[in-house]
Amino acid sequence: MKTQVAIIGGGPAGLLLSQLLDLSGIDSVVLERRSRDYVLGRIRAGVLEAGSVSILTEAGVGDRIGQEGQPHDGVELSWHDERVRIDLTGLTGRPVTVYGQTEVTRDLYAARDARGGRIIHEAEVLRIEDVESDAPVVVYTKDGREHRLEARFVAGCDGFHGPTRRAIPGRARQEFQREYPFGWLGLLSRTPPVADELIYAAHARGFALCSMRSHEVSRYYVQVPLTEKLDDWPVARFWEELARRIPADVAAKLVTGGEVLEMSIAPLRSFVCEPMRHGALFLAGDAAHIVPPTGAKGLNLAIGDVHYMHRALDRHFNAGSNAGIEGYSDTALSRVWKCERFSWWMTSMLHDFPQLGDFEKRMQKAEFDYLMRSETARKSLAENYVGLPY
Amino acid sequence: MKTQVAIIGGGPAGLLLSQLLDLSGIDSVVLERRSRDYVLGRIRAGVLEAGSVSILTEAGVGDRIGQEGQPHDGVELSWHDERVRIDLTGLTGRPVTVYGQTEVTRDLYAARDARGGRIIHEAEVLRIEDVESDAPVVVYTKDGREHRLEARFVAGCDGFHGPTRRAIPGRARQEFQREYPFGWLGLLSRTPPVADELIYAAHARGFALCSMRSHEVSRYYVQVPLTEKLDDWPVARFWEELARRIPADVAAKLVTGGEVLEMSIAPLRSFVCEPMRHGALFLAGDAAHIVPPTGAKGLNLAIGDVHYMHRALDRHFNAGSNAGIEGYSDTALSRVWKCERFSWWMTSMLHDFPQLGDFEKRMQKAEFDYLMRSETARKSLAENYVGLPY
Repeated sequence: MKTQVAIIGGGPAGLLLSQLLDLSGIDSVVLERRSRDYVLGRIRAGVLEAGSVSILTEAGVGDRIGQEGQPHDGVELSWHDERVRIDLTGLTGRPVTVYGQTEVTRDLYAARDARGGRIIHEAEVLRIEDVESDAPVVVYTKDGREHRLEARFVAGCDGFHGPTRRAIPGRARQEFQREYPFGWLGLLSRTPPVADELIYAAHARGFALCSMRSHEVSRYYVQVPLTEKLDDWPVARFWEELARRIPADVAAKLVTGGEVLEMSIAPLRSFVCEPMRHGALFLAGDAAHIVPPTGAKGLNLAIGDVHYMHRALDRHFNAGSNAGIEGYSDTALSRVWKCERFSWWMTSMLHDFPQLGDFEKRMQKAEFDYLMRSETARKSLAENYVGLPY
Repeated sequence: MKTQVAIIGGGPAGLLLSQLLDLSGIDSVVLERRSRDYVLGRIRAGVLEAGSVSILTEAGVGDRIGQEGQPHDGVELSWHDERVRIDLTGLTGRPVTVYGQTEVTRDLYAARDARGGRIIHEAEVLRIEDVESDAPVVVYTKDGREHRLEARFVAGCDGFHGPTRRAIPGRARQEFQREYPFGWLGLLSRTPPVADELIYAAHARGFALCSMRSHEVSRYYVQVPLTEKLDDWPVARFWEELARRIPADVAAKLVTGGEVLEMSIAPLRSFVCEPMRHGALFLAGDAAHIVPPTGAKGLNLAIGDVHYMHRALDRHFNAGSNAGIEGYSDTALSRVWKCERFSWWMTSMLHDFPQLGDFEKRMQKAEFDYLMRSETARKSLAENYVGLPY
């Protein structure tokens, strides 16, 4: 089989890329290791930057976001019972939009189906041949048989554990990593959210986050040691622990007892691979970088990568220029590192790090107090949260 | 001997307090362990916040600062050959003033002399009795004999190594500390400064700072491991190392070869003592807290403490209210922790920390890049550098 761009990974990054390329008249095939049902069953983040909404709209999938997405003009941070609101729209002119990643993926599937996009599910990539040439080949298995997908370019949108990053030879690749000594225990609950806006809660017992997917579905998290097991956390214990970490007047409004849609523990990691292109192979999203979820940057970064990659490929195929391709890695990484910084800073400020000394713990509190007192500090947080310019 | 306020320490904090109290009709005696010549021979910082200049002016010592102090409208940060200017005045409406601490001390001595202020030099404090009462006594030796200074209040302005902080019982006192794994090797040189504004230079070889005392006297620093000795640093080596760490076009303008007025190595430390008042004993400046010199906050924080302490004592003696005294510690500490945060952040961003991993080193660079790209980031640095409001 032949195509112009072989896209590995059928999550939001891969689907969005195939859609944008299609709209530019560029042919692609998406290879996804899992089934469509599996992909649509994954629970992921839900805060979209205004720039991400623009790109999704450009891709023709803005309608339902516009109808069902919730614009949020602010977020709150708390420190025990102290609270500070970050007036996102007031400080930057732009809100964020709460709209689940699963819904983005669903919309993208529908858009690809409507245009006859080729998505091959349950296709396991074995290797990528000749990535340094103009004719790379993706070798994969499907239904027990080996297949070859010939392309001009390969886009690695296959997440942190996918094979594409490792197709860049070790000598040409540098990886930067930080692992955090804790994870997030998440609960997706069919209950109304406790507040209209997200609350990022710092507490001596550990971080907590009150988020939501819709007016009926809440998403809550509590920081836990990585040694914890799900079995240690009956739902009642989760609610109790969450209530202790958020301001008392918020906790008093918690609606518990609804259907539990999902519970899981996710580790927190910062990771960047340099470069993000090697020969004909591009990386995008989690294949190239991971941010801890504090700050809600993961999906937005992937959308940004795809935006840059689409622009580069469009210039290549439709204008005969390789400038975008040559510049892709530097352009994408410049934005990636800024978002890594923001996510690392938000994570560092708000979590309980067991190894921190008393002075460093006071530095965390001093960051919070500075946010309370300084509009400039709040504006800095806001401009990062709503998304730095492309 | 009797007075209303016994002031321990005749550096700028103690002298300024005695001057402000005198102007409010409150009597004080200053006890200084060293001779006046020794105090005036100490080389210290030289960047005054606008708020500090106002307080010094209120104390009647603003004339020479106004004539000889250099207003600086900006500072520069560099990363190898990349540079970003922080437009202090443009971003905050306020410049800083370069004027050496030694000159501040000289002006304060002159002001105290003119008003007949009592300053006892070479007075070694042995102990402070009855700090929890309304009649504390400072016991000190002078000329081989023991003396007692009876007062209503005692002000500890005697620096990090002085005895007053330890007069707060351990059960009532909590100390927060961070030591940095490096020091600053400083060179005071009778040469014109290499640039009109200060340059804070980050480099893989370590931090460097180009500062000045006047148009004829430069102050330069390079970060060195704490294991280094002054003997390891002949002047030629200092100039060579400095030149490697600052942008090449700046290095090309370095004027070396002038008279070396001083060279020394100072460790970097963050330190805070809580509370800053216990009974009749107040702490101010380095007696209560230390900041690393990055950000030039040390002297300014001491002036701020003295401002709050003067206001509290004025209300006590002249308005019969103890509210200022009761609130002194919290008020002062609130500002102290913010400046500790800023000094810690500037230090963390700009220095080479040998133990940092590759990811964390990229976070330092990302902070710098964010400053280059974001006016909000520059404004946040600027509002801290010129001084948060009182």
